[in-house]
Amino acid sequence: MTGTSMNRVLLTGASGFIGRHAIQSLLDLGFEVHALYSKNPIQFDSPCICHRVDLMDKKAVNELMAAILPSHLLHLAWIATPGIYWTAPENLDWVEASLHLVRSFIASGGRRLVVSGTCAEYAWNEEVCVENRPNFSPRTLYGASKRSLFLMLESLCKQVGLSFAWGYIFFLYGSHENTKRFVPNVIRGILGGDFVRCSEGTQVRDFLHVQDVASAFAALLNSDLSGGVNIGSGRGVTLKEIASIVAEIAGGSERLQFGAIPTPASEPKLLVPDTSRLYAELGWKPKYELREGLEESVAWWKLQL
Amino acid sequence: MTGTSMNRVLLTGASGFIGRHAIQSLLDLGFEVHALYSKNPIQFDSPCICHRVDLMDKKAVNELMAAILPSHLLHLAWIATPGIYWTAPENLDWVEASLHLVRSFIASGGRRLVVSGTCAEYAWNEEVCVENRPNFSPRTLYGASKRSLFLMLESLCKQVGLSFAWGYIFFLYGSHENTKRFVPNVIRGILGGDFVRCSEGTQVRDFLHVQDVASAFAALLNSDLSGGVNIGSGRGVTLKEIASIVAEIAGGSERLQFGAIPTPASEPKLLVPDTSRLYAELGWKPKYELREGLEESVAWWKLQL
Repeated sequence: MTGTSMNRVLLTGASGFIGRHAIQSLLDLGFEVHALYSKNPIQFDSPCICHRVDLMDKKAVNELMAAILPSHLLHLAWIATPGIYWTAPENLDWVEASLHLVRSFIASGGRRLVVSGTCAEYAWNEEVCVENRPNFSPRTLYGASKRSLFLMLESLCKQVGLSFAWGYIFFLYGSHENTKRFVPNVIRGILGGDFVRCSEGTQVRDFLHVQDVASAFAALLNSDLSGGVNIGSGRGVTLKEIASIVAEIAGGSERLQFGAIPTPASEPKLLVPDTSRLYAELGWKPKYELREGLEESVAWWKLQL
Repeated sequence: MTGTSMNRVLLTGASGFIGRHAIQSLLDLGFEVHALYSKNPIQFDSPCICHRVDLMDKKAVNELMAAILPSHLLHLAWIATPGIYWTAPENLDWVEASLHLVRSFIASGGRRLVVSGTCAEYAWNEEVCVENRPNFSPRTLYGASKRSLFLMLESLCKQVGLSFAWGYIFFLYGSHENTKRFVPNVIRGILGGDFVRCSEGTQVRDFLHVQDVASAFAALLNSDLSGGVNIGSGRGVTLKEIASIVAEIAGGSERLQFGAIPTPASEPKLLVPDTSRLYAELGWKPKYELREGLEESVAWWKLQL
């Protein structure tokens, strides 16, 4: 069992938006990184060990786990197709696959587990989201599935003595983001010389650069903090502010058309995390200020066009 | 598709404690009853159609569903081994099997779904349990698994337009109960001439005769009430009261030893349901008063000894 005492992490969703950024963060913390991907092979620049595995294939998962014997598991893989993932029945498949993955990890002697959750688990009742209180009431199949997975893992890990934390993801932006999402949509519109039709944009959200989200997950994995932990900047901004900063950087403020499209009725006015666990208890700090992060993003998107 | 417009119910866990009583209740309401069992074949006295199927076998479930095309599904099957089910990892398998069962039911054109939940989903905070409020905080893997299944089914059914209700089971007693459980343990002890060692018995619970629990589930299935519904008598009693009534009926009050064993620290003092949904909204009524039900139980156990 050579090397099992070192920190060896199995990272799922390694080719995803957060996952591809998490590899370097994990390497920086001294982990031996085993990066799992299934559908989207990517070029990993960092020195990690890549494995192509379908997490729905239970036998393949067991075999991989037995071959790697990871001490740590950072599970980020999930269905994330914009516009689809809120209601996709595949959310239920991901609950099943995730339970199997964790049980296989436990059977292989795993020591520390961190899984990505979502702000969609909270009640969306216009209050600041605080972890580990009874203020969860998911409105979507995506939120319900993540919440369910949390409840079962929390209970299972407590029973078997596995160290476990769960990071609630709020809003994020950065390189490699899906073009259908809010920030890339505005950036690409402005850079392309188009008019950008927005809602009034008065909704308050918490946006964190994807590299910081990845770094927070890596830090959480490297700690022994347990339970739910919000992943956010701690600073609420309106969507209007975000769009305005982007347009200013990209040079096209006059092409933003606020109020051109209606705000969906299902959108909560306020959806921001309390971040005291992340900052005070974990002692983590973000690298990017919002403006700086958006400048980096605009620069990255310029190179893609 | 002959006969698919009638009320044809697929009943899972038909050989279980509640399930075997549910068959007659469903027949009384005019259902064609397809009774599923897996491990424990029993003699069904009622005119139902029996199927031996392992609910963990997804292919077999799909085939059965396609063959029966049930309009209604009453899903009671779960792991229920006393002393084991609170922490058994099989709870997670039952979540998976239940999700598959329901998805197969939806795919086969099912119209109405009722599933058994548990008081172990509630927070156990000494407050009366009221449905559909954010007062759920399961302490066990069993409670967390049931809660998770509820969250996912609630969301899934809403999305696909399937009529769905969930019955929170509290405490029950009656014929065919597992001998390791509280009421049979007291009855058999007294009937056997033994001393019966009890805790102080000051915990307040809600006990319903199993035939009434089954009848409440059948009535719920036959309605279009949606969401969580507590299944209880609406009357709280202490365990001491229950044991005392049983001993009086069986003739051996002097052999009850209250305080002989400690009350587990995990036991909430009060665990009773608000039953206004069951009585006022569903309009259901129990058949048994507590004393009457316990008399029937004692008589049944006498015949078994």
